[in-house]
Amino acid sequence: MTDAPSRLRIDPDRLRADLDAVNAIGTIPGLPGVNRPSFSDADMAGRRWLMARMAEAGLAARMDAVGNVIGRWETGSGPAVLAGSHLDTVPMGGRFDGTLGVCAALEAVRAMRDAGLSPRRPVEVIAFADEEGRFGGMLGSEAVCGLLTAERMAAAVDETGARLTDAMRAQGLDPDRFAEAARDPAAIAVFLELHIEQGPILAEAGETVGVVEGVSGVFHWVVTLRGEANHSGTTPMDARRDAFRGLAAFGASIDAILAEAGGPDTRLTVGKVALAPNFPHSIAGEAVFTIIGRDPDEAVMRRLAERCRVGIAAAAAAHGLAAAVEERSWLSPARLDAAVAEGLAQDAAASGLPWRRMVSGAGHDAQTMARRFPSGLIFAPSIGGVSHAPEEDTAWADVVAAAQIFARAVARRAGA
Amino acid sequence: MTDAPSRLRIDPDRLRADLDAVNAIGTIPGLPGVNRPSFSDADMAGRRWLMARMAEAGLAARMDAVGNVIGRWETGSGPAVLAGSHLDTVPMGGRFDGTLGVCAALEAVRAMRDAGLSPRRPVEVIAFADEEGRFGGMLGSEAVCGLLTAERMAAAVDETGARLTDAMRAQGLDPDRFAEAARDPAAIAVFLELHIEQGPILAEAGETVGVVEGVSGVFHWVVTLRGEANHSGTTPMDARRDAFRGLAAFGASIDAILAEAGGPDTRLTVGKVALAPNFPHSIAGEAVFTIIGRDPDEAVMRRLAERCRVGIAAAAAAHGLAAAVEERSWLSPARLDAAVAEGLAQDAAASGLPWRRMVSGAGHDAQTMARRFPSGLIFAPSIGGVSHAPEEDTAWADVVAAAQIFARAVARRAGA
Repeated sequence: MTDAPSRLRIDPDRLRADLDAVNAIGTIPGLPGVNRPSFSDADMAGRRWLMARMAEAGLAARMDAVGNVIGRWETGSGPAVLAGSHLDTVPMGGRFDGTLGVCAALEAVRAMRDAGLSPRRPVEVIAFADEEGRFGGMLGSEAVCGLLTAERMAAAVDETGARLTDAMRAQGLDPDRFAEAARDPAAIAVFLELHIEQGPILAEAGETVGVVEGVSGVFHWVVTLRGEANHSGTTPMDARRDAFRGLAAFGASIDAILAEAGGPDTRLTVGKVALAPNFPHSIAGEAVFTIIGRDPDEAVMRRLAERCRVGIAAAAAAHGLAAAVEERSWLSPARLDAAVAEGLAQDAAASGLPWRRMVSGAGHDAQTMARRFPSGLIFAPSIGGVSHAPEEDTAWADVVAAAQIFARAVARRAGA
Repeated sequence: MTDAPSRLRIDPDRLRADLDAVNAIGTIPGLPGVNRPSFSDADMAGRRWLMARMAEAGLAARMDAVGNVIGRWETGSGPAVLAGSHLDTVPMGGRFDGTLGVCAALEAVRAMRDAGLSPRRPVEVIAFADEEGRFGGMLGSEAVCGLLTAERMAAAVDETGARLTDAMRAQGLDPDRFAEAARDPAAIAVFLELHIEQGPILAEAGETVGVVEGVSGVFHWVVTLRGEANHSGTTPMDARRDAFRGLAAFGASIDAILAEAGGPDTRLTVGKVALAPNFPHSIAGEAVFTIIGRDPDEAVMRRLAERCRVGIAAAAAAHGLAAAVEERSWLSPARLDAAVAEGLAQDAAASGLPWRRMVSGAGHDAQTMARRFPSGLIFAPSIGGVSHAPEEDTAWADVVAAAQIFARAVARRAGA
């Protein structure tokens, strides 16, 4: 190919400098990883840093009502190409989760300007607010899609009970104006996102890019098993109603549940457990634990959930426990725009580097944006699949190659 | 029988008034159960209350160097009969655990004095300090036995890291004088304790008293399984090193462990679990859990421990985890004095009420005292076996009957 986008070249040193600069914000002495939780001072400092870089790059930068930062390159006409990801992190998070996609989108625009390209459409770079869900869901991309409600805004609290509205006001944002962040579907031609995979598939296969065609659905349950707390020394084994034993029985049945009800992309995780009273010498009277189930196929999700209920009931019955399942959320699987994905597949193929089509196990802004706008998502490899941890990493050659493919994809969609 | 002790009658109303009065100390509005943790203000207030009751009963009351309260009836001559238990409780504990034994010993002395009996031996009532092991072990009875060391005193901390020496000084006790609490074996003829069973055996069999012949040994392990924390959505099931799955596999193998290595009185309990990072969407990178194993036969304990190590290794191997076992303590089974137990059995039989010989699954002061002094222990029934909980209870008729048997046993050993 000899079109202008295929000759476009990003500046790896400039990209690395940006990543280093924004990650210096949120680095706390003595605390590992990157710490820019949503609406923290560090998160807001990162967003202000981005607005300054956007202005330097000749973009009109603004922060919308919910904290999304948007830099617009006023070029061409008609609906814009929107590109970006998020800058907020989980506590002790990694350097690339979200941040790479924001910096790569900014670098794509700079590379186009440096190359003297004149796209037919406006191009916007975006850093969404609260993708990590400190206050539930994906606040920034939901706001852009017009999916938020006043009730949701008023009720949203974080794990410590802090209110979203208080956190926003503390950072100078007016939560009552959330609706102003919504965008007209006619104003955006396509949303494109580059993100790290956060899984091991690309790295293990030695592939540079994944073109995401769909995102797994996910259900989030909180299960409570109730038995009887008692003295560990005096209560005979056959007289116990030990909630830990029920938890263990369910945990040990996960392989059987997957064999009977799962598919190749099913994920089933018990990540959080609380016993009560949780004393060494006390039989657990209560076990509360989470189940996160994911699959790209809703029918498989339903089968999986049903089989989990059977497993919970069996584990409870075996140990004389009462069981209760609270469904905190059920997010259906999402398909991304097929035409956009096909275009990204051509961009990946044009790179000459190894790539694949794949499904995302984790949620991303692109999945929310897909509810209102044609949206596409590509993945860069994660070494060992590690993410949401200080050890999260991507080989630098893969970062550069993925950002390069992404820049050319943005340029092509913009008609450069 | 028509000897004086067989005609001895305790006063149930006086016993109930004592139990109510001491349990009013340590009752906190809004917090269930009785709260007199060792060396708390409530614990010390309970001990001062007891000293006042002892003085009213004509006993010479004192608090020794580690906080044990002792009331001596100076009658007869030679080595004394020592009777009692403890007044400290676990947080949110029950009304009878320890407290019944102390109040019953005081009531036994009052009943003897009311009946005009003149024992041939001095009689002492004791409330030991820190039986519940806030600072590890059984501080009060170990001190009386001369088993404490300066190193142990200096190193002892509670679960929050608070130091024993600081807690003692805050209550006006001088920890440097701990050795003064030790008693000469020639000064004590026998130690007798009444305690609730804290298990369901007597209550389920409809029996009033258990004569304890031995106490189970106990080992306390802290097991750490280490895998890899990772994203629950993106990590394929076969690429996980999920520490929760290892914990569950071990927990599900408890029945097999007991079948292969346990005996009829074996107890095996996982009561405390901590996952890390313990987030719903994160695969657990670490699981730390306790194992408490108990048996009255040391050979069975060793077989059980060995089989647990095999089970831990198998669970770790199945899920790609590293396993480490820390042995916090190994207390060998204790036999109580056979002659004392036989005497208590005769006292139980003389009551005409249903009783049995049994092994204690929990540790008691009598087990520590048995290392230096002939010691005996009888149990009253616990409804449902519940203890270390606000719901701990014993039928009042059983309380009265057990206290009556105990009073006559004390009187006989004192030669009344």
